[in-house]
Amino acid sequence: MDERVVISILVDIYGELLTEKQKEIMNLYFNEDLSLSEISEITNTSRQAIHDIIKRCHKLLVEYESKLQLLKKNEENRGLKSELLLLISELKAKTTGNESELLIEKLKQKIVDSL
Amino acid sequence: MDERVVISILVDIYGELLTEKQKEIMNLYFNEDLSLSEISEITNTSRQAIHDIIKRCHKLLVEYESKLQLLKKNEENRGLKSELLLLISELKAKTTGNESELLIEKLKQKIVDSL
Repeated sequence: MDERVVISILVDIYGELLTEKQKEIMNLYFNEDLSLSEISEITNTSRQAIHDIIKRCHKLLVEYESKLQLLKKNEENRGLKSELLLLISELKAKTTGNESELLIEKLKQKIVDSL
Repeated sequence: MDERVVISILVDIYGELLTEKQKEIMNLYFNEDLSLSEISEITNTSRQAIHDIIKRCHKLLVEYESKLQLLKKNEENRGLKSELLLLISELKAKTTGNESELLIEKLKQKIVDSL
């Protein structure tokens, strides 16, 4: 994944661990794609301070990920979901009978909704 | 869940966000069930300091949970796992045919191993 995309996802995952101001600035920079000067104007903060906050928070987010690995776990979960749905579609193709089909549909729905 | 059990699980989940010393003391107190005096002796730290560290870390862990809700998500995952396995066992009871049985077994194994 592109480094910028990774940081933008880390902001979504760990944003609550930042202060309100840090989270706002990281969101504006990585998710809204604004420039340092634009963020400086919006938040009434110097361009240099914005730069420092982004640098510090970037480092913080990477540290959180190295410690809790929630992005990695999310990716693994996404892989698991695909594998389960693939197995279910194979199973569905081989199954007849209303009751079984209903159970397979329930299984699928639960995985789609919750994983 | 008992408050002490909750904190012990939170130490497992968020322990990496504490310092090595904080994590050690929280583990000795909540997972190994040692007394303040015993921990004081083992870590060569005053009983009062141990007390303060436990109090501060307890607060920190509860804050992490209120922000990231990983314990809540783990519990939800456990519930999902039970529901999926129940549906799979119902499905298994209604299914005949080697190929379908094999697919159901694969589904079950993936859920048991990964959720």
